[in-house]
Amino acid sequence: MEFDTVIHGGTIVTPNESWQGDIGIAGGRIAAMAERIAGGARRVDAGGRLVLPGGIEAHAHIAQESSTGLMTADDYYTGSVSAAFGGNSSFIPFAAQHRGQSVDEVIATYDGRAAPHSVLDYSYHLIISDPSPKVLEEELPRAFARGITSFKVFMTYDLMNLGDRGMLDILTVARKHGALTMVHAENNDMVKWMNARLAEAGLTEPKYHAVSRPGIAEAEAINRAISLATLVGAGLFIVHVSTPEGAELVARARAAGLPIHAETCPQYLAFTRQDLDRPGMEGAKYICSPPLRDAATQDVLWRHARIGTFDSVSSDHAPYRFDASGKFAKGDAPPYTAISNGMPGIAARLPYLFSEGVVAGRISLQHFVALSSSNAARVFGMERKGAILPGYDADIAIWDAEESRIVTVADQHDAMDYTPFEGMRLTGWPVHVMSRGETIVEGGELRAERGRGRFVARAPYAVPATAPVVPEMDPATNFGAMIRP
Amino acid sequence: MEFDTVIHGGTIVTPNESWQGDIGIAGGRIAAMAERIAGGARRVDAGGRLVLPGGIEAHAHIAQESSTGLMTADDYYTGSVSAAFGGNSSFIPFAAQHRGQSVDEVIATYDGRAAPHSVLDYSYHLIISDPSPKVLEEELPRAFARGITSFKVFMTYDLMNLGDRGMLDILTVARKHGALTMVHAENNDMVKWMNARLAEAGLTEPKYHAVSRPGIAEAEAINRAISLATLVGAGLFIVHVSTPEGAELVARARAAGLPIHAETCPQYLAFTRQDLDRPGMEGAKYICSPPLRDAATQDVLWRHARIGTFDSVSSDHAPYRFDASGKFAKGDAPPYTAISNGMPGIAARLPYLFSEGVVAGRISLQHFVALSSSNAARVFGMERKGAILPGYDADIAIWDAEESRIVTVADQHDAMDYTPFEGMRLTGWPVHVMSRGETIVEGGELRAERGRGRFVARAPYAVPATAPVVPEMDPATNFGAMIRP
Amino acid sequence: MEFDTVIHGGTIVTPNESWQGDIGIAGGRIAAMAERIAGGARRVDAGGRLVLPGGIEAHAHIAQESSTGLMTADDYYTGSVSAAFGGNSSFIPFAAQHRGQSVDEVIATYDGRAAPHSVLDYSYHLIISDPSPKVLEEELPRAFARGITSFKVFMTYDLMNLGDRGMLDILTVARKHGALTMVHAENNDMVKWMNARLAEAGLTEPKYHAVSRPGIAEAEAINRAISLATLVGAGLFIVHVSTPEGAELVARARAAGLPIHAETCPQYLAFTRQDLDRPGMEGAKYICSPPLRDAATQDVLWRHARIGTFDSVSSDHAPYRFDASGKFAKGDAPPYTAISNGMPGIAARLPYLFSEGVVAGRISLQHFVALSSSNAARVFGMERKGAILPGYDADIAIWDAEESRIVTVADQHDAMDYTPFEGMRLTGWPVHVMSRGETIVEGGELRAERGRGRFVARAPYAVPATAPVVPEMDPATNFGAMIRP
Amino acid sequence: MEFDTVIHGGTIVTPNESWQGDIGIAGGRIAAMAERIAGGARRVDAGGRLVLPGGIEAHAHIAQESSTGLMTADDYYTGSVSAAFGGNSSFIPFAAQHRGQSVDEVIATYDGRAAPHSVLDYSYHLIISDPSPKVLEEELPRAFARGITSFKVFMTYDLMNLGDRGMLDILTVARKHGALTMVHAENNDMVKWMNARLAEAGLTEPKYHAVSRPGIAEAEAINRAISLATLVGAGLFIVHVSTPEGAELVARARAAGLPIHAETCPQYLAFTRQDLDRPGMEGAKYICSPPLRDAATQDVLWRHARIGTFDSVSSDHAPYRFDASGKFAKGDAPPYTAISNGMPGIAARLPYLFSEGVVAGRISLQHFVALSSSNAARVFGMERKGAILPGYDADIAIWDAEESRIVTVADQHDAMDYTPFEGMRLTGWPVHVMSRGETIVEGGELRAERGRGRFVARAPYAVPATAPVVPEMDPATNFGAMIRP
Repeated sequence: MEFDTVIHGGTIVTPNESWQGDIGIAGGRIAAMAERIAGGARRVDAGGRLVLPGGIEAHAHIAQESSTGLMTADDYYTGSVSAAFGGNSSFIPFAAQHRGQSVDEVIATYDGRAAPHSVLDYSYHLIISDPSPKVLEEELPRAFARGITSFKVFMTYDLMNLGDRGMLDILTVARKHGALTMVHAENNDMVKWMNARLAEAGLTEPKYHAVSRPGIAEAEAINRAISLATLVGAGLFIVHVSTPEGAELVARARAAGLPIHAETCPQYLAFTRQDLDRPGMEGAKYICSPPLRDAATQDVLWRHARIGTFDSVSSDHAPYRFDASGKFAKGDAPPYTAISNGMPGIAARLPYLFSEGVVAGRISLQHFVALSSSNAARVFGMERKGAILPGYDADIAIWDAEESRIVTVADQHDAMDYTPFEGMRLTGWPVHVMSRGETIVEGGELRAERGRGRFVARAPYAVPATAPVVPEMDPATNFGAMIRP
Repeated sequence: MEFDTVIHGGTIVTPNESWQGDIGIAGGRIAAMAERIAGGARRVDAGGRLVLPGGIEAHAHIAQESSTGLMTADDYYTGSVSAAFGGNSSFIPFAAQHRGQSVDEVIATYDGRAAPHSVLDYSYHLIISDPSPKVLEEELPRAFARGITSFKVFMTYDLMNLGDRGMLDILTVARKHGALTMVHAENNDMVKWMNARLAEAGLTEPKYHAVSRPGIAEAEAINRAISLATLVGAGLFIVHVSTPEGAELVARARAAGLPIHAETCPQYLAFTRQDLDRPGMEGAKYICSPPLRDAATQDVLWRHARIGTFDSVSSDHAPYRFDASGKFAKGDAPPYTAISNGMPGIAARLPYLFSEGVVAGRISLQHFVALSSSNAARVFGMERKGAILPGYDADIAIWDAEESRIVTVADQHDAMDYTPFEGMRLTGWPVHVMSRGETIVEGGELRAERGRGRFVARAPYAVPATAPVVPEMDPATNFGAMIRP
Repeated sequence: MEFDTVIHGGTIVTPNESWQGDIGIAGGRIAAMAERIAGGARRVDAGGRLVLPGGIEAHAHIAQESSTGLMTADDYYTGSVSAAFGGNSSFIPFAAQHRGQSVDEVIATYDGRAAPHSVLDYSYHLIISDPSPKVLEEELPRAFARGITSFKVFMTYDLMNLGDRGMLDILTVARKHGALTMVHAENNDMVKWMNARLAEAGLTEPKYHAVSRPGIAEAEAINRAISLATLVGAGLFIVHVSTPEGAELVARARAAGLPIHAETCPQYLAFTRQDLDRPGMEGAKYICSPPLRDAATQDVLWRHARIGTFDSVSSDHAPYRFDASGKFAKGDAPPYTAISNGMPGIAARLPYLFSEGVVAGRISLQHFVALSSSNAARVFGMERKGAILPGYDADIAIWDAEESRIVTVADQHDAMDYTPFEGMRLTGWPVHVMSRGETIVEGGELRAERGRGRFVARAPYAVPATAPVVPEMDPATNFGAMIRP
Repeated sequence: MEFDTVIHGGTIVTPNESWQGDIGIAGGRIAAMAERIAGGARRVDAGGRLVLPGGIEAHAHIAQESSTGLMTADDYYTGSVSAAFGGNSSFIPFAAQHRGQSVDEVIATYDGRAAPHSVLDYSYHLIISDPSPKVLEEELPRAFARGITSFKVFMTYDLMNLGDRGMLDILTVARKHGALTMVHAENNDMVKWMNARLAEAGLTEPKYHAVSRPGIAEAEAINRAISLATLVGAGLFIVHVSTPEGAELVARARAAGLPIHAETCPQYLAFTRQDLDRPGMEGAKYICSPPLRDAATQDVLWRHARIGTFDSVSSDHAPYRFDASGKFAKGDAPPYTAISNGMPGIAARLPYLFSEGVVAGRISLQHFVALSSSNAARVFGMERKGAILPGYDADIAIWDAEESRIVTVADQHDAMDYTPFEGMRLTGWPVHVMSRGETIVEGGELRAERGRGRFVARAPYAVPATAPVVPEMDPATNFGAMIRP
């Protein structure tokens, strides 16, 4: 067999095992794995290194306009480059529908933003804010058929919040057509009520952002979202879980056998609401939603990362510069409600998780593979990604587990002027990243051409036959013809 | 001391103890208790009988128009008479605001309905469906100051549902002014969505009522209501809990020290959704909301009644006759959605609870006193009722624990043409009922005059200082001036 | 009616209510209660004061020899006097069987110690360390028939530990004959293993006592004790619960409807293992078993006291002086294993619980009555005590809720030379204590004669019919004649 | 590269993914994996078939004498042959120490039984019944160093039960030297007490076996075992979990991050205590310990198998023939206590799990791989087994997912005269089984030579650094030099 590339001598890691040997790549795919592979047009020495499936970033805002019109700092070029430097081979940013827009138009818009620029393979999670009958009955099924088999909805933000009825309708569509609903779960009314109370009291500094979106707002909404999904028998992916109570609800649902998935993000493991109280407007850098919590929360979230409550740890990269183009688009020292919401992290996600997770002994190396890549591939239907096995795309990140570096904004390679991780020493870094067998980052240099990334059509999401059913939906009862969607 | 009445020789029961002896009544109040009391203008022999605080019915719909204009069959005369036959000395029906109505007007209306007719002492729980700023800021505080210190809100029914924001606002008013919010907790959108599915499928017989309001809709709403109350630090009383999951949520909240109260009703202990599937339209008699569940639920609810999860067991008496004036106001054989919702039970509540609870060994006699009277008095601020102690109103029910009778509709003494308990043999019946020292029922005969009942001004509700606070509301954090309502 | 004493003008408190009025006492019993009672050979003014059921101390070691021969400092005179100054009207110390002793002999011995000396009414809990067939089949039933209807067993200490089989046998006897088993639950092997490890490491200072009896040893033993009792369908009273995990197990068992009772003690609410690390041998004063824990534990135990997990808060008064007669009977600075185990607290129990509980807002005044007196009376079968109702013994403590004092050892009126509560300011003190209508303490002076106390025959303990049964014991299964004890 | 064997065209399944392709085997190891591999001295067509890691049977009694001297029907030949027909490539039977025996002698004995006869690769779990100081300090560490890094202990059976102290000692040795303790968890005293009660009542038919070992005896012991392991910081593997309560305890411990492992067995998923009530002595075939439970238990255990509570599903193959050599060694119709305990299932384990698990939709195919092979390899340290990856032993089972057969005793290929699975139709069977690249079973024929199996030295077991520690063992406290083993 002829190989374009042979990676030799590394320790290859799966979600369950490690093995020593070589990987032969041909035509962008993993063609062979063996203890020793001779030949290869190119031989990459991975001796003393870890050879992992390339990271899959499943939560990022790239070239996305917010519902109020603000564009993220990163486009598909800078966003994908930054992700590549962070050990990722593919990503799934959002393609956001604004109210009134057709899904087809949304996809066309994002195709225009992504295809010419992305250096990583990509797909989109849709964001649906306007689930009209046409969207539900025609446009979404068409998008799913195209391989865009997941979408996010919001339980918060007036311009985005679907309401429970909207959630039920769209969850039903997802179940019927084999897609996975993702949800930003915070109780909208609680947040608005808190905002009103804080405004009345004149409490508007950045730190009050953490007060305005209390943990109980997330926990309530997660419980409600799980209840809604359970009623219609649909799967659900809860994004950016930030509270012990929320994680516990997910864990309990999973223990009950429900098809509930979830992620947390490095910022909830690394920072606390105290960071919002940094001098001057520095706290604005740490404004994201849900907000940062506290040290006890960090311990609980790490435990849930370890025990399998979370499918993945994602960045929720939402890049707004610390200037008038981003954080301060609405003024120099605005109230927290007017500060743009989100923080960058697409490059730092995996080094942070490796260093504070694997090196610090909180998670195993195998579980890092699951949390960084494999689980996202399985849940989101990237059938040829997330594993180092014959026939899979040769998306591979070679890591040096001993390299120790201090994070700087320059190393992020994004379009941002700050990183919340600035100054943090991390151990364990990706040193060589491949996408479909092509080196895209090596030795700190970008090797990829703009636009080389390809759209990935994803497989449908299927609810397991064993997922429990609420009694009122159970065909086994004597109430005859039921209405199970 | 001169006594108007002496009850002698009975076994007097408190929520904790029993004792043998005599009770001296003067001026409508319990003036003395002693092992033996001589004299008395009237002597009532209670030998071999139980002497209990008169029942307090805390959940009844009397002379109440629904939001769609339907009037209950019972007015304050028949309703209070029926309650008296069932061992009650006082009750707290609802005074319901329709959208646009002022609370003062509501109270005036119900005063007109109650005062001239009631044979029992009474108060009202308000029902608030339109919490305008004027209602919240002026009218409710004025009603509380009048001693109407509780009100109910709905999380379901389009014309009643306050929404989460409305709940937060009104819970805050309740906390601030010392009132207790009661809540009918079912997720409105879930119910409407189920109705739509069932309608599409042509499933409209009475039994589908149970499908249309699934247990998960109650559990979700109870969790949400507790979350909303917890955010603002308010107390909450969850009416007619009908599900294991709902009861478990209440139990957990109470174990956490939260000021959460709850009741269940005899119908959820006695009947199941199978009763909705009785031949013809008979199932319509069993349509109430939340709907009847199943046998496993009954066991769990009894356990919660026993272990103290529920403060009380109330009737939710909602009397609509099995004819065009009631159940079938919208047609002879209408879809379940058009059948009037509710069932009678104000006379059967206590005999059912005594027989199936005390006699069947599920609850102690002392706990019967708590569930039937004392707890309601304490929670709802009836300071001189619910206990047999000097200075308290002489509201007393003398029970014969061994009398065994079959329930008939005639024995209910209400305005109804059916009782769901028809034909059930119950052991243990009230044989003599007093209100403020006056006999109102004795030997199966009514002794009370129309309109003898008095309005009871109730004490404020206070949240215990020890109730836990969400961290974002905790003045002990470093976020300075907090916004604790 | 003629009254020996009338207490007038006080606020009388029950576990559920408070009322204003007078109490007439005749023949040592409460003869009448009324809003106003004239006359009385003696009138006690309780204006502005609280009138509570006299405390019942359900856990005290008085005139008791340990299994190694050490006698407590307090005999029935000093012990009962100290208890009286602490607001108690009766107590139930232990009558301890040593191996080989007959129960009849044990009772005779303690009768000799108690009857001539006690100023309080008293009963005994037996301690059974040698459950021979004769003890189980003859002696215990005879003791129960005499009204000694409770006994304690140990799961720890080599000379006391019954083992699981012994527990099953004695629980079965208790169930059959209507007695309540109390248990000191700590895993004996865990403690011995820890002792061996600490000894190997030369870690013998008092503070290592807390390490030697880890919380997990208590939690394990509580779970095991509940399991053993559940298997045979017996009730159980778990003494001195000191851990969050233990309290949670009790709470869960109670929520399941099991007849599980429990207490905690003031020392677990007031002190921590840091107190064992006081300079020199001062830590020895705080050695008791189970050992003191930490501040987080205190919060959890208070919560369980509030929500009803504990029936009572008892002192576990185990008085060993801080000298060679007590703490240091085995040497001046012995290893922690040789320091006598236990601390005094019979006088401080109720003032501590009132001040830190009621005054500090952690428990209601009504619940103080339950925890200090009423519940113990009900659980342990003192039928005429623990309530202020006609016919009950006139055991009454009048409290001044506003008096504030600093605790001193002199004020304890016991035989001890220290109190762990020394120097603590407490608000709310008993100012007048009666036993059967006789004043025993008033104005800081003892008014009782030695030996005035009487033995109280107690009622049997009955398991509720509704307590759940393990499936293998369930007569409803198809396995026919079951072996339910 | 030269391959001895190439398996081509199959669907290879890992615990996370599936892939299509070929496997090249050389020198008994997997040398290469690729989309296509040409050549090979032998080509095995796996088209349309599943290619799985060969099963690892982690719980089997082979050539083992019970503590009362009874020998199992299967020796290492028939036992390994039967396992091979059931899709296994390796197994780990027990090497049982009798009291007084040295561990070295035990190993030598079993080496003599296994090496000349086994057709599968094998290791042993020791069974330790006599943990003398010499065993703990010298013999066990020596056995661990030889690669026998797991052992089982008993909490039941008088001749086996170590007691809590013995458990603590041996768990400490295991932690210190890197071994894993397995435990049969049933409360010995509960069982003995039940036996005595049943004997008194003359209830001795086989069905009373299920009564004699109640579920609560297992749950109690599992809780205790976890507590003991947690105290010393050791890992634990709980064998044959048979109760909902036991599984829930394991799930909770794992969620807390404790190193607790567990298995269940097909018999607890397939049968109930009703099977013990079959006519005549037929019930004896279903006597095993812990005993069979009920249908509700089956559902809960399946759920735990699905959600990851169990590492594996093992057979607990304990073959005693239905004659005087086995079940009736102590008489023809003995009381249940005298019937030999255990049932066969080494051949049926995987077909049952595949059919009722994978085909019935209860578990995924990937999870079947985990439960049948991969997890056992990881937990028990078989470093080159349990995965199809380069360098791993070529232990492979090719399955036909569509083959449907009825189980017969003849097909078990063991030394037994019955199988409890007789007559059950199962879908999905292994059709070709390899061990180190050698075909051992193909087309229903045995191809292996007696004694070809090799001993597998296993890697040590390591407790994760993140496992929580009880506070008293926490070096972070101020109690200085702690005693953490």
